[in-house]
Amino acid sequence: MTATSPQNPQRFPASVMTQFVQKILEACGVSQANAGKTADLITQADLSGADAHGIFRLPQYVRRLRAGGINPDPDITIIKQRSATALINGDNGLGHLVMSRATEIAIKKARKTGIAWVGARNSNHAGPASLYPRMALAHDMIGIYMAVGSANHLPPWGGTDMLLSTNPIAVAIPSDEIPPIVLDMATTVAAYGKIKTALQKGEMLPEGWMIDKEGMPITDPVRAVDGFLQPIGGYKGYGLALVFGLLAGTLNGAAFGKSVIDFNADDTSVTNTGHLIMVLDISAFSDVDLFKKEIDEAGKLMKSSRKLPGVSEIFLPGEQSARTMRERKRNGIPIPAELYAILKKLAEDLDVKSL
Amino acid sequence: MTATSPQNPQRFPASVMTQFVQKILEACGVSQANAGKTADLITQADLSGADAHGIFRLPQYVRRLRAGGINPDPDITIIKQRSATALINGDNGLGHLVMSRATEIAIKKARKTGIAWVGARNSNHAGPASLYPRMALAHDMIGIYMAVGSANHLPPWGGTDMLLSTNPIAVAIPSDEIPPIVLDMATTVAAYGKIKTALQKGEMLPEGWMIDKEGMPITDPVRAVDGFLQPIGGYKGYGLALVFGLLAGTLNGAAFGKSVIDFNADDTSVTNTGHLIMVLDISAFSDVDLFKKEIDEAGKLMKSSRKLPGVSEIFLPGEQSARTMRERKRNGIPIPAELYAILKKLAEDLDVKSL
Repeated sequence: MTATSPQNPQRFPASVMTQFVQKILEACGVSQANAGKTADLITQADLSGADAHGIFRLPQYVRRLRAGGINPDPDITIIKQRSATALINGDNGLGHLVMSRATEIAIKKARKTGIAWVGARNSNHAGPASLYPRMALAHDMIGIYMAVGSANHLPPWGGTDMLLSTNPIAVAIPSDEIPPIVLDMATTVAAYGKIKTALQKGEMLPEGWMIDKEGMPITDPVRAVDGFLQPIGGYKGYGLALVFGLLAGTLNGAAFGKSVIDFNADDTSVTNTGHLIMVLDISAFSDVDLFKKEIDEAGKLMKSSRKLPGVSEIFLPGEQSARTMRERKRNGIPIPAELYAILKKLAEDLDVKSL
Repeated sequence: MTATSPQNPQRFPASVMTQFVQKILEACGVSQANAGKTADLITQADLSGADAHGIFRLPQYVRRLRAGGINPDPDITIIKQRSATALINGDNGLGHLVMSRATEIAIKKARKTGIAWVGARNSNHAGPASLYPRMALAHDMIGIYMAVGSANHLPPWGGTDMLLSTNPIAVAIPSDEIPPIVLDMATTVAAYGKIKTALQKGEMLPEGWMIDKEGMPITDPVRAVDGFLQPIGGYKGYGLALVFGLLAGTLNGAAFGKSVIDFNADDTSVTNTGHLIMVLDISAFSDVDLFKKEIDEAGKLMKSSRKLPGVSEIFLPGEQSARTMRERKRNGIPIPAELYAILKKLAEDLDVKSL
């Protein structure tokens, strides 16, 4: 094994990480099949570079599984359905299980009806938003996902009470030669994880990320607790966060506003997290091969634009993830030393062989 | 009639404006029924305060109708459909006719399947994005609309070639007591119309609206031609504009990227404008009355937030439109003197009785 450093952290093959995550989850009472499915999705998150939503979250999931905050053995059921819709009850299971099930249902329905929309209540944090729309790609379908975030960090525009989360949207569109277009974004300028990272690294925040209760910019992340995130485009991002929250939360009978549990601070309360997945069958609109070639053309057109001074390359949404995925499949997934120590302790506590 | 001024412009009852618009369109060869339907939607735009997308656009529509850029008598047909989807060919008709037809189809389908997604090609500018999702409200449904804008004003993030439009999204969600939640937004910090307004009024632009080809802020609207709009949240708004454009344009076989015609500069080329409307039947997920009351509660919760210094009221998306609508239904729709003069000239040219 080569020497590791913060710049050159220890790396693990995806299959090794998947097995480790699976064993940890099994040790928390999750069935072999469910632990395997969740471990696969968590590893996919890390492969794609969504480091703040992959194995980094495992200790938190374990705390909740052990404290009763997440049901290790959920009975995920369809509460209501029509030919192109379903509302599912996640029975407080791991969000990955709930939303992969929701997406499977949506794909099956969309094949017949052209479009399907499946909402979920009683779910939990499900990793990065892009995981589920990505599942549609292999079926020559487009996926769209929205969720209520797992903690409120955003006030309504002009307000100071944190009543909204960074409610994200993700969209995945298949292509032919270029990587699929995969947009995955919070509706705030910066995700809360970026504030935490700056705090850890002792870096200042750029103006525009956070303001305090007087409306003044917060640039020192130590002061983050006194302030709140800023939505993209001001009132527009507030509007998006609100609307995504109503569609993914309220419509599904899931938490929204004051009923959102901060799952960073609370390991036991049922979060009743809401999400939705939409799946669209391309063949209901276009010839699939033609469409994929047109996506290639559109992507290449964007990349061919002349550039602003100092810009070396124009990226498409999902393009950098695709590069990270190729690189990590080849070289393994990097685990920073601090995280490795936490995972090692976790393994010891659960009597599982360490990574 | 009371004296008028820029602060106190002449006002016209909605019914009078509708009749006027209808007569103008009829004089351009639009059938009575189609002219009436379009005039209704244009008047609704003005009632809701979407002044840049209502009767203000009539002279442009007339120029295109007379120059052959818009087909006055379109045969709007369904090209492809499944139980929950349709792709329609607008036959280069007025966008209002194409998208109201698309929305009617979507509402009918959603009643059975729970959700419907209808895309359109060969359409044209259809007024403000909110018009069509609003049509879903009376059916206890949620509407979501996206479109390819009618001119490219946005480069890909980091680029300088204007390959994207301000591709908007609109979402309408019904409520019980409070006004419906109606979000209607471009994916740029400012819509291009705001730049034009600043130019007319001799006002400077705030930093963040536009940059020039060197990446420096443009604050003098005279220099707007040398620069481009900025997307909300930087690369995030670019991602939204791109994805909305691919879904509303490319997927429907409509214009995207270089094939987008600047309909401000060109009266004759077929724009092949693409839009999409999604309609979701609330009863497929929730009890409708309960849901509407929950939307009221969520809205009241946002409005109850403590406020930043200097903020007198927190607004919900669509709330200010609802106030404008009430006020204009009572007092009439204001027409600024410059616009009145243009409409008067238009009426004379077409031998129609002036407003």
